[in-house]
Amino acid sequence: MADYAQPVVDVPALTAFLDGRYVEVRNLVRKNLAEYAGVLDDAVELSRDDFRDRVAEIVLDMARTGSAGMGFPPAYGGGGDIGASVAAFETLAFGDLSVLVKTGVQFGLFGGAILQLGTAGHHTTYLGAVISGDLLGCFAMTESGHGSNVQALGTRARYDLETREFVITTPDDISRKDYIGNAARHGRMAVVFAQLEVGGKSEGVHAFLVPIRDGKGRTLPGVRIEDDGPKIGLNGVDNGRLWFDDVRVPRENLLDRYASVSESGVYSSPIENPDRRFFTMLGTLVQGRVCVGGAGINASKVALAVAIAYANRRRQFGAPGSDREELLLDYGMHQRRLFPLLARTYALHFAQEVLAGELHEVFSAASATGDLGDDRDQEDEALEMRRRSLESRAAATKALGTWHATRVIQECREACGGAGYLTENRFDALRSDTDVFTTFEGDNHILLQLVAKGLLTDYASGFNDLDQLGMVRFVAGVAVETVVERTAVHKLLERIKDVLPGGDDGWDQEAGLLDSEYHLAMFRWREEHQLSGVARRLKRGMDEGMDPTEVFSRAQDHVIAAAWAHAERMVLEAFVDKVRSMPEGDNRVAVQLLCDLFALSTIEADRGWWMEHGRLSSQRAKAITREVGDLLRKLRPIAEDLVDAFGVPPEMLHAAILERDGY
Amino acid sequence: MADYAQPVVDVPALTAFLDGRYVEVRNLVRKNLAEYAGVLDDAVELSRDDFRDRVAEIVLDMARTGSAGMGFPPAYGGGGDIGASVAAFETLAFGDLSVLVKTGVQFGLFGGAILQLGTAGHHTTYLGAVISGDLLGCFAMTESGHGSNVQALGTRARYDLETREFVITTPDDISRKDYIGNAARHGRMAVVFAQLEVGGKSEGVHAFLVPIRDGKGRTLPGVRIEDDGPKIGLNGVDNGRLWFDDVRVPRENLLDRYASVSESGVYSSPIENPDRRFFTMLGTLVQGRVCVGGAGINASKVALAVAIAYANRRRQFGAPGSDREELLLDYGMHQRRLFPLLARTYALHFAQEVLAGELHEVFSAASATGDLGDDRDQEDEALEMRRRSLESRAAATKALGTWHATRVIQECREACGGAGYLTENRFDALRSDTDVFTTFEGDNHILLQLVAKGLLTDYASGFNDLDQLGMVRFVAGVAVETVVERTAVHKLLERIKDVLPGGDDGWDQEAGLLDSEYHLAMFRWREEHQLSGVARRLKRGMDEGMDPTEVFSRAQDHVIAAAWAHAERMVLEAFVDKVRSMPEGDNRVAVQLLCDLFALSTIEADRGWWMEHGRLSSQRAKAITREVGDLLRKLRPIAEDLVDAFGVPPEMLHAAILERDGY
Repeated sequence: MADYAQPVVDVPALTAFLDGRYVEVRNLVRKNLAEYAGVLDDAVELSRDDFRDRVAEIVLDMARTGSAGMGFPPAYGGGGDIGASVAAFETLAFGDLSVLVKTGVQFGLFGGAILQLGTAGHHTTYLGAVISGDLLGCFAMTESGHGSNVQALGTRARYDLETREFVITTPDDISRKDYIGNAARHGRMAVVFAQLEVGGKSEGVHAFLVPIRDGKGRTLPGVRIEDDGPKIGLNGVDNGRLWFDDVRVPRENLLDRYASVSESGVYSSPIENPDRRFFTMLGTLVQGRVCVGGAGINASKVALAVAIAYANRRRQFGAPGSDREELLLDYGMHQRRLFPLLARTYALHFAQEVLAGELHEVFSAASATGDLGDDRDQEDEALEMRRRSLESRAAATKALGTWHATRVIQECREACGGAGYLTENRFDALRSDTDVFTTFEGDNHILLQLVAKGLLTDYASGFNDLDQLGMVRFVAGVAVETVVERTAVHKLLERIKDVLPGGDDGWDQEAGLLDSEYHLAMFRWREEHQLSGVARRLKRGMDEGMDPTEVFSRAQDHVIAAAWAHAERMVLEAFVDKVRSMPEGDNRVAVQLLCDLFALSTIEADRGWWMEHGRLSSQRAKAITREVGDLLRKLRPIAEDLVDAFGVPPEMLHAAILERDGY
Repeated sequence: MADYAQPVVDVPALTAFLDGRYVEVRNLVRKNLAEYAGVLDDAVELSRDDFRDRVAEIVLDMARTGSAGMGFPPAYGGGGDIGASVAAFETLAFGDLSVLVKTGVQFGLFGGAILQLGTAGHHTTYLGAVISGDLLGCFAMTESGHGSNVQALGTRARYDLETREFVITTPDDISRKDYIGNAARHGRMAVVFAQLEVGGKSEGVHAFLVPIRDGKGRTLPGVRIEDDGPKIGLNGVDNGRLWFDDVRVPRENLLDRYASVSESGVYSSPIENPDRRFFTMLGTLVQGRVCVGGAGINASKVALAVAIAYANRRRQFGAPGSDREELLLDYGMHQRRLFPLLARTYALHFAQEVLAGELHEVFSAASATGDLGDDRDQEDEALEMRRRSLESRAAATKALGTWHATRVIQECREACGGAGYLTENRFDALRSDTDVFTTFEGDNHILLQLVAKGLLTDYASGFNDLDQLGMVRFVAGVAVETVVERTAVHKLLERIKDVLPGGDDGWDQEAGLLDSEYHLAMFRWREEHQLSGVARRLKRGMDEGMDPTEVFSRAQDHVIAAAWAHAERMVLEAFVDKVRSMPEGDNRVAVQLLCDLFALSTIEADRGWWMEHGRLSSQRAKAITREVGDLLRKLRPIAEDLVDAFGVPPEMLHAAILERDGY
């Protein structure tokens, strides 16, 4: 550390850099949050029903500032900017998360389904009322017995040729719709996902608009609604259960962008293959996943802002004879607990920025060029490839971002001791409300499986339509080398070789620990090796005549590890690219420290794997641990600046421990 | 797995084995829990104040069955059996944890302080009323600005020679008592820890009985009480803050087992050294720590019982063409998530049994042989050594047991998906209520530091009275070799050598992966190496002229890692010993699988460390991962039996997801 000059962080400049393209949108939401700061107390003080009503009010009030409808076409009162709508949502995660999730249910899920799965008639009829909040609605996909496996939903929608209606039916209790936001109290309509039956033939899962309450809030005939009751958190959102007892809706209520049923009962779709049709429909809903990941990352920032500021005030134990105790943040262990999480939060922030940018471009392009039917041209094909890559990136970032939130908030709570346990210090709400982020919008394990499946079957059948056993059969069916060669893995390996012309031996020296190219090469090699390892494992299992279910079950943890490695590689790439884009100066020096810490602490945490695979010597592994220690000490003086730069509105920190002084 | 015969678990026999010596006590508490099962709903449905009152009622009702006073001397209405009181408390953790913690506050902390720190007069005057619940009280140690560092408490108790009273004063806001159970609503008296001043001289922290409310519940003059407000969990416990504005209590209210003040203002103590006196006083309160660790372990059992039973019912995804989806528990990743935690729960159960047995023996012996003053004989010395070892074991087990609870409950919540997020499925309460276990009764990091300090300075100054910088100076001051030689580390190394006469090379072969001696040797070697590494690190820092604070800060994560290694070694030893004590048969085969899984999954998780230090080849590391996979598959068919054997009362599972069927 001898010739190291401590950087001085320019906090406002760093905040502006983090806010990026959507600084105005983010500031609008910050202003809204500050204005409705009372909601953080309402969450504690009001009864559940009153709080739900209060949250509904706030959601609609904020929507009137334009922050919620930003992603919708201007024709219906929207802002026409998808990226802006993601930025707004992410920023909302600094505040009460029931407000966030209720906003997501109404505008993202309910409105998003009408926009993406419906056609002009639906848009004209409903979107205005959705955006204004005059029509509150639900996204009724998940059932008690069918969550991740959406294709196996039990709810049925039979076309009745005589009346030209769809008849929506819940066949059994495990097929009731469950955990549905806006269902228990405020929703008047639901987008219901159900198995479409036309002329006795099942056509797979489609979405239908089904009114559930009248204008006075009374449940409509044939609909049964039950409250999901209290939850770990998000108690300002009225989640509930829905049963349909032969509820009839007109033929027009099928959201028919990807399939329609004629009056005479003829089913048709621009996409021939039913699996492809299904995954295309689901794929259009990817924005929800992007938003939840971003929300998790931003909730982490709030926790870190409180914990690091507290640790920079609170003293404990000191040198004997000294009057002063030491600041918590001066303890090596405290730095160890918090700073790698801070670094990872920065990393995920930039990865999320790349993802949101990609979402914006793909969906802006899609709405410009039209549909993805079977009659698509080359341009459509290219867009579809990009869409699939976007879906994979969204799944990966959502899984990492939301698990990160759970981990960060818990660590920050513990780092604040008994004070962290009191509701007045913010962690209660953060912890309870974010907990389900790892589950909703796709269970994280399932999402990582999806990522791995995509990597393994890339370019193969052309679509993401293989189930897990299909994937096993596919990967085992072609030579492993073919899979590896065809996939991104191969390209990765090439890139690694370019970067490290010296070959394997070139890696293992004491020098270059702070070289981002070294970090990238390590991450890439892990990804490549894990993916091809999974492919080999699947093939071997099938070659040995094992049941495909068993083959998959045994390889599942490797499948998920491979996806994790892929996701972390993408995160590191985003971080490194971003640092390189920064102008020279102290802020760049500071962010580079975080980037190095993210890379090295990640390698350190999984060093067993790299050592096992001959990519890390024990000497170098120890050197990495030492380097991590050095980075922690360099970050110590600027740690509070680095959380201040997140720009969490002071009203949203709302922690009594930060209001006291003189510890 | 070819010649492996699947064991059939005899569940009742295994429950009896787990219950051990205190099966009757545990069954009494199970019966109490079932009788008051409604409290789990009360926790959700009642207002905070009503719930607090309901919890107080239940605590006292249950106490009347004798379950709460078991550890007190029969002369005052107690059961005279310390081990039984721990068993009762642990079992209570299957139920609502506000009831548990309120019980702990009243009988363990308040009553325990009077018993341990007071003398006959206090016992006669108060213990009967404490045990009957007629006198509810607080344990007022922690302050807002002084938690782990109890010696730095700010509250003062000045002896007023004229009136022969102590004057209790809160000098500033950070010295207010905080997080004090029974303070906000029910407590009438508090054991207040304060800096004793006699004749202008400070004599260090002592405990005083201070009335805070009158018989009608009105706050007494000079006392100020504030509610801590809502907390993440445990909202049935009325935690609060206390300020004392020159509150006067008679001279007799000093709990004077270890120090007294004569009428004429002469301070005297049987223990000369103030630090030694302080730590002796604190040491008598170790039972609380033992109880909290046990409670964490038992709360983990409840979470695992729900999650594993659910995974054995709920299906998701299946082979295409098949009507049936697969059970969650048949997925390799699901086994990976849950079974190592199940194995560790068994491991910690047995470690806790050893600890509670040791507590029982030491404290039964102590009450038989009298005090620990400076005029102690050889028998007292031996007892004191054992006490210190007990304190270290209690700290280690508490840290591991409570972190385990946090981790297990979170993983189980996530493994139950959206259902896990609903309050009706038990995880809400488990997660929220246990969260603070890692903090109270000693912050886990501080406890592990204590463990490490004890190991490093063992036999040195004779007492646990070095602060962290004292430890640094001590360790650095003597030759490292001396420390290593003098301490348990040395003995460990000897034992390892005995076990593995072949020396280092003998370890690294493919065979013997399921040999408990191999596991023990690995755990012992890690402990030894980490401890001596810390000693060397501290010495080097001091030799280089670094400030001791800085030396400690830089070594702190290694200090904690060394204590962790020590703790895990003790856990494994307890587990291995216990399995060996089992009669041959299927239950032993089943528990052996868990023991192997605990050992190997622990090695696997930290394999980077062993590889770094040349104790594990990459080949063998991979073999361990394969073996873990085999163990998971062997445990799959008996996993539900193994959680059933915990004997959680069915009423305490209280999970709607287990009441439905036909997933």
